[in-house]
Order: sequence, then C-alpha cells, then structure tokens
Amino acid sequence: LWGLPILSSDAISSVAYAGQEILYVLLPAIGFLAFKEISVVTAAIIILLFILMLSYRQTIENYPNGGGAFIVAKDNLGVLAGIVAGAALSVDYILTVAVSISSGVDQIVTALEFLKPYKIALCLFLVLFLMIGNLRGIRESSRIFGIPAYAFMFSILVLIIAGYIKLRMGYVPPEPKVNYSPHPVTLVLLLKAFASGCTALTGIEAVSNAVPNFKDPATKHAKTVLLLLSLVILVLFGGTTLLATHYHIVPTEGAMLVLMAQEIFGKSFMYYVVAATTFIILVFAANTAFSGFPMLVAVMAKEEFVPRQLSLKGDKLSYSNGIIILALVSALLIVAFNGNVTALIGLYAVGVFISFTLSQSGMFVRWFKNKGSHWHIKAFINGFGALTTFVVVIIIAITKFREGAWIVVLLIPLLVFAMIKVKLHYIAVADQLRVTPADKELLDVDHNIYRNRVIVPIESLNKASIRALRFAKTISDNVIAFNVSINEEQAKKLQERYKMLNCSIPLVIRYSPYRKILEPLLEYIKSEEYNYQKGDMITVIIPKFTVQRWWQKILHNHTWLFIEKELLKHKHIVVSVMPLQLKDDDVVLKKKNKPLWKILEED
Amino acid sequence: LWGLPILSSDAISSVAYAGQEILYVLLPAIGFLAFKEISVVTAAIIILLFILMLSYRQTIENYPNGGGAFIVAKDNLGVLAGIVAGAALSVDYILTVAVSISSGVDQIVTALEFLKPYKIALCLFLVLFLMIGNLRGIRESSRIFGIPAYAFMFSILVLIIAGYIKLRMGYVPPEPKVNYSPHPVTLVLLLKAFASGCTALTGIEAVSNAVPNFKDPATKHAKTVLLLLSLVILVLFGGTTLLATHYHIVPTEGAMLVLMAQEIFGKSFMYYVVAATTFIILVFAANTAFSGFPMLVAVMAKEEFVPRQLSLKGDKLSYSNGIIILALVSALLIVAFNGNVTALIGLYAVGVFISFTLSQSGMFVRWFKNKGSHWHIKAFINGFGALTTFVVVIIIAITKFREGAWIVVLLIPLLVFAMIKVKLHYIAVADQLRVTPADKELLDVDHNIYRNRVIVPIESLNKASIRALRFAKTISDNVIAFNVSINEEQAKKLQERYKMLNCSIPLVIRYSPYRKILEPLLEYIKSEEYNYQKGDMITVIIPKFTVQRWWQKILHNHTWLFIEKELLKHKHIVVSVMPLQLKDDDVVLKKKNKPLWKILEED
Ligand SMILES: [K+]
Ligand SMILES: [K+]
Ligand SMILES: [K+]
Ligand SMILES: [K+]
Ligand SMILES: [K+]
Ligand SMILES: [K+]
Repeated sequence: LWGLPILSSDAISSVAYAGQEILYVLLPAIGFLAFKEISVVTAAIIILLFILMLSYRQTIENYPNGGGAFIVAKDNLGVLAGIVAGAALSVDYILTVAVSISSGVDQIVTALEFLKPYKIALCLFLVLFLMIGNLRGIRESSRIFGIPAYAFMFSILVLIIAGYIKLRMGYVPPEPKVNYSPHPVTLVLLLKAFASGCTALTGIEAVSNAVPNFKDPATKHAKTVLLLLSLVILVLFGGTTLLATHYHIVPTEGAMLVLMAQEIFGKSFMYYVVAATTFIILVFAANTAFSGFPMLVAVMAKEEFVPRQLSLKGDKLSYSNGIIILALVSALLIVAFNGNVTALIGLYAVGVFISFTLSQSGMFVRWFKNKGSHWHIKAFINGFGALTTFVVVIIIAITKFREGAWIVVLLIPLLVFAMIKVKLHYIAVADQLRVTPADKELLDVDHNIYRNRVIVPIESLNKASIRALRFAKTISDNVIAFNVSINEEQAKKLQERYKMLNCSIPLVIRYSPYRKILEPLLEYIKSEEYNYQKGDMITVIIPKFTVQRWWQKILHNHTWLFIEKELLKHKHIVVSVMPLQLKDDDVVLKKKNKPLWKILEED
Repeated sequence: LWGLPILSSDAISSVAYAGQEILYVLLPAIGFLAFKEISVVTAAIIILLFILMLSYRQTIENYPNGGGAFIVAKDNLGVLAGIVAGAALSVDYILTVAVSISSGVDQIVTALEFLKPYKIALCLFLVLFLMIGNLRGIRESSRIFGIPAYAFMFSILVLIIAGYIKLRMGYVPPEPKVNYSPHPVTLVLLLKAFASGCTALTGIEAVSNAVPNFKDPATKHAKTVLLLLSLVILVLFGGTTLLATHYHIVPTEGAMLVLMAQEIFGKSFMYYVVAATTFIILVFAANTAFSGFPMLVAVMAKEEFVPRQLSLKGDKLSYSNGIIILALVSALLIVAFNGNVTALIGLYAVGVFISFTLSQSGMFVRWFKNKGSHWHIKAFINGFGALTTFVVVIIIAITKFREGAWIVVLLIPLLVFAMIKVKLHYIAVADQLRVTPADKELLDVDHNIYRNRVIVPIESLNKASIRALRFAKTISDNVIAFNVSINEEQAKKLQERYKMLNCSIPLVIRYSPYRKILEPLLEYIKSEEYNYQKGDMITVIIPKFTVQRWWQKILHNHTWLFIEKELLKHKHIVVSVMPLQLKDDDVVLKKKNKPLWKILEED
C-alpha cells in the first residue's frame, strides 16, 4: 500500500489549511456561532468528496494510461476544452506550490514564534530548495517518500483522539477572545466558507493521473487507493474541523493544527511532532507539483500548445524550464500575497475546480459516445460530478472574486488565448513547409537552378580573413572580398597588402566614417555593379571566435551576430559562420618570452 | 564666458555638500567647538584648491586637445598608470551621480518635508530621468545649460551677503540643540573633517578635459576659466562654511544650505530659490557624468582596455551601454547607501584624488622628459600638486576606510585587474591572427587545398529541407542528407518519401530515442563510413526561421542555435544558416477558408 502515501501528500496535506480557512471566514462574521456552523460546511464538503471519488473511479477505469484533466477533456470535449483544462491545471500546480509552502511556513512560525519576521524569506528559501532539488533530479521513486504521509496521518490521528479523550475527561477549553461584528448566518456566508473549505479536496485527482504507476491490476489498485484516500481525508478533515469547534481555535493567531496541538498537548514533544509532520507533508505536496508541472508542460508541448522545445522527452533541459517557471511564478505569488494562505486559497480553488469540472464533463460525454454496460448510471455519476463541481466553480469565483479569484478568472482566458495563438502558429508553419504536388519544380533537387555567389567581408588581412577567402573559393567561382574603410588612406594600405596575396578574388572597398559594415554591404548587393539576378543565392561568410574562458565571450562576435541577424532577414542571403578557435591567452603570451608588463607597455 | 557655467556645474555644485560634511564630522565629536575648527579645515582645503589650480593650468597648456587623467597618466607614466587612472575616473563618474543626486534630493526633502519618505524613490526617479534623457540624446550644447550655474552662484551669493548683513544688524542665531560626546580636538578628527571637505574640489579637473571646446585661443581661455572657477569656489565654499559657524547649522536636520536659508530668509521666496537652484545645479552635475563616462569608456575601448564594441565612435548603441552601466551602478550605490551623502562621500573623494594624483604625477614626469623653459619651476608645481593630492588620498583612504572607502580601495584594483586581462586577451588574439612570412602556404589563396563537404540535417521532407538540399548541391559535389529517427518505422517512412524526390544526394539515417541530432551527427562525422580527411572542411546547413511577430521568436530556432554553437567548437566545421521567412499566420490560415476553431479541432 505504498501507492497511497506516495501519491497522497498533495491530497492529505490540504487538511492543514482547509478547515482553518472555513473558520477564517465564519469567525469574524458570526463569532462563536461559527463553531456550530462549521459542521454544516464540513458535511457539505465531505459529500462533495464522495461524489468526486465515485466520479474519478470511473475515470481510472477508462484511462488505465493516466487520465489527467487535459487528456480527458481533449479526448472527449475537443481541443478547446483541452486547452482550457491545460491552463486550469497549470494554475493549479503553481498554486499548489504557493499555498503549500505558505501554509507549511505558517506551521513553523506558529510553533517557533521568533521566526515570524522571516516568513517570506523562509517561503522563498523553500521554493528555491525545491527548485534546485528538482533540477538536480530528486524523484519520488523511493519508498522513503511514503514516510511523511504516514507520519502526518499518525500524528493528526493522535491529535484527534487525544483531543476527544481530554474533552471526555472534563477539560473545558478557555473562552476565545474574538472581536467580531455580529452578522446573521446568511447563505452567502456559508457559501463563502464552503468555497474556502473546498480546498480540502485539492489533490485527490492525482490518483487518476498516476494509474500506470500502480502494480497490476493497476486500475483495481488505483481505485482502492482512491477510496482509502477519501476515507483518510474524511477522518482527518472531519476530525480536525469538528475538534476545532470544541477547542474554539482562532486561526488569526496561527496555524489551526498547531494551535490545537498546543491546547491538547501543551508545548510538549507531541506538539512539535504535529507542527513538524504538518510542515513536512506540505513541503512534499509542493514537491509533487514540481514533478507534475513539467510533465504537463511537456505533454502540452508535444501537442504544440506551448513552445515545442519544452517537449523533448527525457531531455533534462526541457524539464528544467518547467521547474524554473513553476518556481518563479509561485515565488512571485507568495511575495505578492505576502505568504497569506487565506488570500491564495481563492485562486487555488478556482483553478482546481475548473479542471475537476472539465474532467468530469469529459467523462459524461464519453459515455454517450462509447455507451457500454450500465452506461446510463455511469453517465449520471460523472454528470452529477461535473454539475456539482461546476456549481462549486461558480460559488468560488463569485464569493472569492474580490479576494483574488479575479486573477485566475482573468489569467485562464489569457493563457488559453496564448496557447491557441501558439497552436495556430505551428499549424501555419506546417502549412507553409508542406510539399504539395504543385511543387514539381522544387522536387527536382538535382536540376540546379540556384547560382551561388559568395561575399567575404574582411576588416583587415589576417589569418582569419585569408582562411575565409580560401574557404569561399571552394564553394563558388563567384567570390568577392568586401571591405569598409574609414578613409582612402586606410583603403590604400589594405589594397597594397591585398595585392601581395596574388589572389584572383576581387576586392571591393566602400567607405563609412564609423566602419559600419551592414548598410554598405546591403547597398552593394543591391547595386548595379553587383548585378544580382533573381534566384541567385548569396553566401556571406562571417567569422565566429570561440574562446577558452567564459569572460572572453563578451569581448567578441557582437558586431557579427548583429550582422548575421540582419542579413538573414533577406531570404536570398545565406550566412556561413566560420569558426575560429582562439588559444588560451597564457599559452600565446608565454611564447613571446617577455614579462607581461613589458608586453602591455610595448603594445 | 559661457565656458565657465557650462563646464562648472560639477565643480561648483560641490559647495552643496562639502561644507556640511565637515560639520558632520566635527559636530558630534566636539560640539560647539566645531564651529571654530571649521575655519581651519576650510582654509586647508582652499590652499589645496589653489595648488590644484596652478597644477592644472599647466596641464591645460600642455594638452590643448584635452588632458584627462587617463591620457596624461598613460602618456607619461605608462600603460599601467593609465589603467589605474581609468579605473579611478570610472569610480569618480559613478559617484558623481550617486552623490549629486542624493544631495540634490536632500535639498528637496529639507525644503518640502512631506517628501522625506520618498527620498530613495526620488533619487531613483532622477537617475532614470537622466538615463533616458541621455539615451535620447540631450547634449550640453545649448547656452541654456549655463543658466542654472549662474542662478546657483547668484542665490548663494545673496544668501552669504544677506546672512552677514543680518548678523551685523544684531541678529543672534538660536542655540543649537546638539547631543555630542565631548572629545578633545585631535589631529585625526581634523584630518577626517578635511577628508570630507576635500569633496569641494571634485569637478575642477573638468576644465582640463574640455580644452578643445573653448574658443581660440583655447588654452588661454581655459586657463582663465579655471582661475575664475577656483575663485567662485573660494567665495561660495568659504562664504557658506564660515557663515554656517555663525548660524550654528546642524546638518543632521537636513541640507546645510537650505537650513541656513531658512534661518536667514524664513520660509520666504528666497528660501525656495536657494533650495531649487541648489537642487538643479546638483542634477546638472550628475548629468555631466552621463556625458563624460561614455566618452571615457569609448576612449578606453579604443585602447582595448574594455570590450572593443564599446568604442564604435558615433554609434549610438555604444554610448547607450555606457549610459546604462552608469545609471545602474549609481542607482545600486544609492540604494545600498540609502541615499546617504555622508556615507557616499568617502568613496567619492578616494576615487577623485587618485585620479588627481596620477594626473599631476604624469605632468611632473613629463617635465623631466620634455624640459623646456623654466621646467624646474613647472615640475615643482606639478610635483607639489601630486605630492599633496597623494597625501590627501592616504588621509581619505585611512580616515574613511570603514565608512565605505574600502569599497573603492578594493574595487579599483579589481577593475585594473580586469582591464589588464582584457587588454592581454586582445594582444593574444592579434598575435594569433597576424600573418607572418612563415605562413607562405596560407598566402596562396588560389591554390585550393580545402575539400568542402556538406551535410544537410533534415527532420522531415518539407520545403525547407528540400531548399537546403538544393542549396547544398550548388556549393559542393559531396553532399549527404542526415536524419535522426526515433525508430525504424519512422525511418522507413522518410526513406520512401525521399525516394520519390529522385535526388542523387544519399540519405544517412541514425537512431536516437529522443531525436537528439548533435551527438549522432558528430559520431557520424568521426565514423569510418564518412571517411573524414584532415584538411577537409565540412559545411552543415541549418535552417533559421524569421517570423513576423516578436512572440513567435520564442517558438523557433532553439535546438538549431544550440547545435550551431556546439558544431562551431570544431574548427573544421562551418555552419551555413539558411533563412526561412515565414508568412504571417493570419494570411496563411485565411487561405484555408475555414473558421479557426475548425482548423484547431481538425489538426
Ligand atoms: K485534499
Ligand atoms: K492540495
Ligand atoms: K493540487
Ligand atoms: K568642487
Ligand atoms: K563634484
Ligand atoms: K566629478
């Protein structure tokens, strides 16, 4: 049963913040009444949990190769729905990191108050730590990754049991000091609390993504794990939130689980165990996003919704990009929201429930296409899942709109728009490159209709320019050397040296006070003197120095890189880059047999 | 006499902070005694001013084309001294901006106290403003630039005269509230105050740099301007610091000149005139660094002490680099020192006086080489100047070491080291490129010893790859097409399509699970099958897409850019880049005559 803990850190870690966020909404508005209403909200969320669980069991059955929201939506609802799911999932991963890390640090600074001023710094350090760790390739392969989940479950179970025993033994928790402005219990308020609490369900979809990772029979194992996971969340989430009502926990003072542990255990060993295991499970939850996000990006890149270079499977570099993007954006969010879990939770829930909705809707439509035994009931289950999660999206988007959900509501369409533009661009490129039967002339490769002419720009006569001239002769009989001089004096000097070469390549000289090469060269190509014929190709040979030390790079190639870029804007110009390997400075200078200061002074 | 004000903003603006910094050192240590000791320090600085003036007059005479410290030191003391002077001058320019802007904002926030919380923001805004202004090319050509200098001189003169009249009329300034820990008047303390006050002299070297800008007879005019400038500083600096002793100004409460204006004029019109003119002259002083620094960098780049691409004279781009570097580094310093003039002043004075010392030492040595009439006296004057400024460097470096001068004491050797490394690199490159009589074989360009072989990597058969194959045929008879496939199935498909081309170029296929092209290609080139002969050149043709929109750039060319970079590390491989112009997406997609969503779903 290691499949349970390894996959589950994202899902069960939500227990650390979901309950407290419900209290956060209710307490300032209705005060002590909150501790009564919390059970209503918790019950609603647990019902939703089981709807989702039933719905996702069917996804697992139908997608034994892994059924993430992106794949299920694209498969059954079409490309556009897939793109929306991809955007929503990306937001989900980014906020998994931001929320889990912020909440994890909350646990720490609640237990160790002297760390409070360094909250943001700690968050950023953890994101950096996960980024570097994942760049260097820690993977969730090892069984060790299961331990934190069991440790967390164990410590929270002990907390719940000890809490109830203490109450039974007659303990009366102290009255909380809450400043609240009394409101009636309205539906809007309950819906707001429900929206916050729905984050308890974020992460259960992970099982359906990971079916291929289970031992055979994989779908059966995956379904069992999903059921167990739902039961674990039921016990931990239900147990802690209900316990909070008895202990009158006020989450403005810190993380709910840690505060509760303090009341139940005092500042004893178990108190620190609760804080530590909660912190660790949250960091592991953030870590799952670091393996999930680059994979999602790679899948979308293969389908050309994001830049294709992110898809190269197994290429470390492409995964690195995903990891770095995830770290940067989540760090940005943490800073922008000052590491405030309550503020981030709205953004998180919207993204997750949009992907839930799309995934369940996709399954619903699938049944109508594929039918099969009992498909009516199965379609009903998924349809009901889709409907309820859709209603939840609307509730969250509205009740949390002002507190930040608007960012996601705005960001997802923007991401979708960008992904559509990228996809259409790749389609347009493929269209332009496609060889059609009409391209007969093009297909006759051996029939050479190009004439190739070569231009070798030279600044002076040195080994590099002579090498370029010699190379030019091997690729064409139509070569010219091209020089830009500041004045006639300089030009004459070059001409004299060039004569000594006894070379059949003509030397063309143009003047420019600042020795700009590009403009005179382009003018020359257009001039009657050069007599360019349509269909000819012109090869311009430029040098590129390769150096021995990193810092020497900034000393070379700038002008030529610019010229290359500009020349390539002309479709009849090919740029040939000749490499020139420079030896190490020390080796070259040593040959001079002079002290360095003398070389300096003499130059 | 417009030469005076245009050149002088750097020099005379120093009056705004030099006097106050003397008080800043003395006041906390010796309290009211400070107001007596200030005249001793001021007198020493004014003596130093006239030593420098006499010394620089001789520089002007000998360098009618402009004698900046870099040129004078390099000319007379050698390359190494020139490099040190260049480094010191760079530090000088950067701190001219940091100090002038910080002090300018001090004037503002002293007069308008509600702006105090925005001090750093105001500083950064001004640096940004000067950067953008200079990037867009404001130049000190206009006579308008003389007005602020005259306005400043006028308002400070009025301040001094009004101040003395008020005292004569029996006004008794209020006793200042100073919390000081009484110390005896020690030499160290006076030296510290002297070191701070020496910043009054920063900027007078500007005249000697700018001799060619004067009307003929230029040297005569320049010498007159230098004399006048020294007298102006004498009057303004001497007048304000002595007046401060009578008015018991405490500069911890704000900028000295503005506080003095408040006591003399009250919060009247003249009070705001003093603050405004002082602010403006300081901004103009910072602006002179924005024209001076890029010019210094260009001169050093021409001599190859800094990357050569910074030298292209008249090229807007190269000046831009200098302007941006200056703005960034000075902004960084302002932030690091929290816009604190007192903290920055130590760094500033060290840099300036090192360049003074080198410049005067250079002149001293010059007399021994060139002799001429009365050269003994002239050498004595410059030698005395060099000696005194050298002593001042030592005093500043020691007394201000802990307060930040250590940064400059460390930075200048680092800059010098870097500049030497750059210069040596360029020397080593020139050495490698130089054609010697021994390179006979190389000189015979027409005698073709290279054999050119071409490889065209193709991913699939499309218009781009066919175009590349056709181009390859025009530059060599030895061409192969090279493909990397994931598996044999993919390879077979390509081979079948390739057969239909009826093309004489052989197709070589290699396998790689991740379609990496580079490694298989390099292996193939090394293989016996390819039979590479030493001396052959291999041209690899790679495509480069040029796109219509900026954002499309991130979708292309990454893999090829990487392959190009890696291939060019082999000196026998030339990379030919074929441009491929993509049409606008909208135009291409419109031809399909389908709605966009249909194109998306069908792909
Ligand atoms: K969960
Ligand atoms: K979660
Ligand atoms: K998640
Ligand atoms: K000055
Ligand atoms: K100055
Ligand atoms: K200066």
